[in-house]
Amino acid sequence: MSQPLPVAIDVLGGDFAPSAILDGARQAAALGIAVVLVGRAADLEGHDLGGLDLIECSEVIDMDEDGARAVRVKKDSTLVRAAEAVRDGRASAFLSAGNTGATMASALLRMGRIKGVTRPAIATPIPVPGSLPTVLLDAGANPECTAPMLVQFAQMGSVYARSRFGIHVPRVGLLSIGEEDGKGNALAKEANELLRVGAAGPSVNFIGNVEGRDIMSSDVDVVVTDGFTGNVVLKTLEGGMKFFAGKVFEALVATPEAKEAAKVLLPQLMPLAEALDPSTYGGAMLLGIDGVAIISHGSSSAVAILNAARVANDMVKADLVGALRVAINADPVS
Amino acid sequence: MSQPLPVAIDVLGGDFAPSAILDGARQAAALGIAVVLVGRAADLEGHDLGGLDLIECSEVIDMDEDGARAVRVKKDSTLVRAAEAVRDGRASAFLSAGNTGATMASALLRMGRIKGVTRPAIATPIPVPGSLPTVLLDAGANPECTAPMLVQFAQMGSVYARSRFGIHVPRVGLLSIGEEDGKGNALAKEANELLRVGAAGPSVNFIGNVEGRDIMSSDVDVVVTDGFTGNVVLKTLEGGMKFFAGKVFEALVATPEAKEAAKVLLPQLMPLAEALDPSTYGGAMLLGIDGVAIISHGSSSAVAILNAARVANDMVKADLVGALRVAINADPVS
Repeated sequence: MSQPLPVAIDVLGGDFAPSAILDGARQAAALGIAVVLVGRAADLEGHDLGGLDLIECSEVIDMDEDGARAVRVKKDSTLVRAAEAVRDGRASAFLSAGNTGATMASALLRMGRIKGVTRPAIATPIPVPGSLPTVLLDAGANPECTAPMLVQFAQMGSVYARSRFGIHVPRVGLLSIGEEDGKGNALAKEANELLRVGAAGPSVNFIGNVEGRDIMSSDVDVVVTDGFTGNVVLKTLEGGMKFFAGKVFEALVATPEAKEAAKVLLPQLMPLAEALDPSTYGGAMLLGIDGVAIISHGSSSAVAILNAARVANDMVKADLVGALRVAINADPVS
Repeated sequence: MSQPLPVAIDVLGGDFAPSAILDGARQAAALGIAVVLVGRAADLEGHDLGGLDLIECSEVIDMDEDGARAVRVKKDSTLVRAAEAVRDGRASAFLSAGNTGATMASALLRMGRIKGVTRPAIATPIPVPGSLPTVLLDAGANPECTAPMLVQFAQMGSVYARSRFGIHVPRVGLLSIGEEDGKGNALAKEANELLRVGAAGPSVNFIGNVEGRDIMSSDVDVVVTDGFTGNVVLKTLEGGMKFFAGKVFEALVATPEAKEAAKVLLPQLMPLAEALDPSTYGGAMLLGIDGVAIISHGSSSAVAILNAARVANDMVKADLVGALRVAINADPVS
């Protein structure tokens, strides 16, 4: 077997860049995952690159820049160079915890779409402690969607749940505001009709509409929705869980007696906290791009980057992109 | 002061009807809240009506019936008769834990809209333990909205947060997928523009876009969105919180040692559980109807009904409808 291509890691993206990113990259390398760093030398002085290869560039796209515009203007930025490394066969995948819009734009413009894909979507695993996660898509790439786009998301989400989590026949639900087929807004109703008549093809196991309360349950594997609703859901859950966890933690340290009691409960509570920690899944996958591209959370820790590199590596090995290509072209959505 | 009109309670709506509903109604009456029951005599045999007045009717709308259709067909149902009792001056307000769509349709068709209101909206208080709740609207009445409708929701939500929670100048946020004004889908962008130029009038304190993670925070008092997104958010939070609470509970009873430790923590954890319990706020308010109409959760307990009756009574006394009328007509949204 030939030497695998490395995962390109944007060292300068994310709230804790470059330290946490470098730390995660070194940990990934130590586990035998080939990685290549993409960064600006000036920002890396005094940091430990762990002897890893560096693709040097001269620009950085800030977190609050307009993504599409920044990618056009900053042609020598880490995000653009990382996507180009994949396009040019110098890397197998790229990941960034930086500007989400710019990561999407860079992947789309430099790596291109899989033939037949109307719009790439962000697929985010929603943790379901004690069970496999639910794949939510689109989690924010496309604020406006058409029903045929949602049908394609059903196809891509199915492939991803299979490749990534080994779910042989993933159950795909359409997010709506009632389980009955006729419930929802115009987009959900139209998408439901298309999915009901099998527009996504025989490989998609459509189980009908699901509601918000089903997302964190083991009743569905893939939840399809437009990027506006999906992003709102993701951030609502993130905020709600963080808030709840914070309140539980406050209760555990409220008094000296509570602190003692909390020690007894830690073995039970820690796995829950871990399961709900977004860093466990390493980030969101941009599905529909002609290559593996991972958008990690802005607040990514070293562990999150390590996990993202591992996922990127796994998805390259599993030929996620090839499987997506087959699924999209087997059942093209008109 | 003249004898106040009673709150009409649909005795046959909800998962635990009629027992829990009757129980809640009797508790409300015991606290001096005037109530009148609306029910079918046959269903109430052997139940304790506590000597309360009963408006008798012959039909019941089931939970899974199409709301609008059921209201047209079942003219002698509890839901229709309860709304008519308000219209005809026999009751001050009505509340039901039954079919949400039918409750809305019945309120709209029998009680009518406040002049100038394009569409009534469901306003649901989202608990924020340790802080006042956030009012979310529309939580499901209108799956399709226009930007001017969202502007009106901002006006109505402000009035409600003031009347119900005593927030003098409620901070109103527009739910979107980025805090910057230009972020979101077409609807959110257009609504943001209207709210920015003051289309909701000087009485609305618009603080800009908010994200899902802000809903359960003390940074915003009223969150405005379309009824599809709002309903998805509501059910996502409900599901997420229930799931998380269940997992924490599992941890607390996992071993004999954990159970002992949990006893110490109960005084800290119980207030949190209570604050997050939907029954605390009694239900959602249908804003924009020419009268007070409350939609309680299908799984309402006696306490939820008691609290809903209390809220109904308070909102009648505070002349919520009068305040809404003034706000809508002071700054009509074109």
